[in-house]
Amino acid sequence: MKVITAIKDMHAEILKQKGLGKTIGFVPTMGFLHEGHLTLLKQARKENDIVVLSIFVNPLQFGPNEDFSTYPRDFERDLALAEAEKVDYVFYPSVEEMYPHKPSVKAVVQERTDVLCGESRPGHFDGVATVLTKLFNIMTPTRAYFGKKDAQQVAVIHGLIADFNFPIELIAVDIVREADGLAKSSRNVNLLPVERQQAAVLYRSLQKAKTAIDLGERNPESLINMIKEMISSESTGQIDYVETLSYPQLKPLEKLESTIIIALAVNFSKVRLIDNFIIQID
Amino acid sequence: MKVITAIKDMHAEILKQKGLGKTIGFVPTMGFLHEGHLTLLKQARKENDIVVLSIFVNPLQFGPNEDFSTYPRDFERDLALAEAEKVDYVFYPSVEEMYPHKPSVKAVVQERTDVLCGESRPGHFDGVATVLTKLFNIMTPTRAYFGKKDAQQVAVIHGLIADFNFPIELIAVDIVREADGLAKSSRNVNLLPVERQQAAVLYRSLQKAKTAIDLGERNPESLINMIKEMISSESTGQIDYVETLSYPQLKPLEKLESTIIIALAVNFSKVRLIDNFIIQID
Repeated sequence: MKVITAIKDMHAEILKQKGLGKTIGFVPTMGFLHEGHLTLLKQARKENDIVVLSIFVNPLQFGPNEDFSTYPRDFERDLALAEAEKVDYVFYPSVEEMYPHKPSVKAVVQERTDVLCGESRPGHFDGVATVLTKLFNIMTPTRAYFGKKDAQQVAVIHGLIADFNFPIELIAVDIVREADGLAKSSRNVNLLPVERQQAAVLYRSLQKAKTAIDLGERNPESLINMIKEMISSESTGQIDYVETLSYPQLKPLEKLESTIIIALAVNFSKVRLIDNFIIQID
Repeated sequence: MKVITAIKDMHAEILKQKGLGKTIGFVPTMGFLHEGHLTLLKQARKENDIVVLSIFVNPLQFGPNEDFSTYPRDFERDLALAEAEKVDYVFYPSVEEMYPHKPSVKAVVQERTDVLCGESRPGHFDGVATVLTKLFNIMTPTRAYFGKKDAQQVAVIHGLIADFNFPIELIAVDIVREADGLAKSSRNVNLLPVERQQAAVLYRSLQKAKTAIDLGERNPESLINMIKEMISSESTGQIDYVETLSYPQLKPLEKLESTIIIALAVNFSKVRLIDNFIIQID
C-alpha cells in the first residue's frame, strides 16, 4: 500500500495503472474510518483491479459554525484499517496541496440541496461537489463508492456525475445495520442505553412505511404521519424531519410514484440519527 | 471524418482511441468557423494523433439580452472547413443532448471575471466553465486549444483546469494578425474603410507599450495613458477600456512585474474590437 500526498504523484500512479488497463475503484472519505467506510472498501476491492482511498478533511464543506478544526482525525488507525482492506493507494493531501490559493472556480449545486439535511447547511454540498470534481479529475476512477446512509449526498453526486458528464460509475452501497435494524454509525456510541434500545424504531418505522406502500398507500402525508407517530410513541427522540421525495431528484411529491426516498432525522439527547429507505414503486 | 451528436457515442469513440494509446487534441467552438479557429485546428493536427472539433452554441454563456437565437450558424460550411483541416471527429450535440434538464450543478468562476469584458457580462464565464467541464469530461483530451485573442477566456480556463485539476494541457495559441498588425476577426468586415485603416493603431499602441516596458517603464497609469492617447489621436474609435493586469490571475497591478496582460477594447461605428499583448517582464 502506497501513501501519496502530492496530486501530481497520485495522478502519475493512476496514469500508470490505467496504461496497464487496470480498473480503478475510488473511495473518497474524510478519514476516521468506521464500518461504513470499510464496507465501501470491501466492495471496491471486489469490483476493481486497483483500490484508491482518499483521506481529506475538506474545509470547503464546513460552514463557519461547523467543526472543521475539531473534526476527528486518526491517520495511523485509518492506515491500519486501509491496509487490512488491501487498499492499493491512500491519497492523503494537505489543505495547501488541494487549495494552494483561493480557487478561481467552484462547483455549485443548484438542485437537490434545499431539502433534508441540506436546508440547515448552506454551501455544504457546493464544497462536496467542488472537492469531488477535483478528486475525480485526479483519480479518473472507473467507479466511485458512496454509502446510501447519506442519501442526499448520493443524490447530489448522482447529479454531479450526470450533469458534468464524468465518465464514472457511481456505486451507492446499502446501509449496514445492527441486528435490530439500527443503521451503523460511529455516533451510535453517544446514545444513552435506553435511547440505544429505542433507536431501532427508526428502522421499524421505515419498514412499516414500506409495508404500507406495498399494500397500496400512495399519500405522502399519511405515510409521514404514520412514521412520526410511531417514532414519537416508541422513543424519547425529537423528530427533526420525516420527508418523502422523488429520488434522486429530491423533489416534493403529491403522490408516491416511481422511485422515492423516505428519509428521517431524529435528535436524541446527545446525538442526531438519520436513516432512509429508497423504494421503487410499481 | 465522423460527425457525432450523442454524448455516449462521442465518449465511446474517445475511449476506443485512448485504448489504442492515441493522444487527443480538442478544439471547442461555437461554430461559424473563422481563420482563428482554423489556426487552432492546424496546431491541434500537428500535435496530436486525433483531433476533435466540437460545435455547440452554448445557451448557458449568453445573457438574457444577448443573441443566443441569432448567433450565426453555418454547419455545412463548418464541416467543409473541418474536413479540409483533417479533423477526425466533429461533435455536434443538440441543446437537449447537452442539457436534458436544468443542470443540478454548475461551475461558477469566482476570480478573474470582474475585469475586462467580464464586467459587462455577468454569468458569461460560469456558462463557459460549465460547458467546458462537460466537454472536458466527454473528450478527456490530452490537449485543449484556445486562442489568445480572448485572453480573459484563456485566463478563466487556465484557472478551471488548474483548480479543478483537469489532467489536460491548455494550449493558448497566438493571435493571428493582418499584414498591418490588426488582429484577425470575422468582425473586421464590419469596419468602415477609413476605420479599417485606423484600426491597426490598436496593435501599434500595444507595440509602443511593449517598447516602453522594454525601456524600463513600470507604471501602469503612464502606460495606459500612452495607449489611450495614441488610439484617440490616430482613430475615431471610442475606447471602452485599456487595462494592465497580472496574468493569468487578472489582478490589478500597482507596478508592472512578472507576467502581465495589456488588454484593450475599442468601439468603432458598427463593431467593437479587442486586442492584447501578454508580456513577460524580467
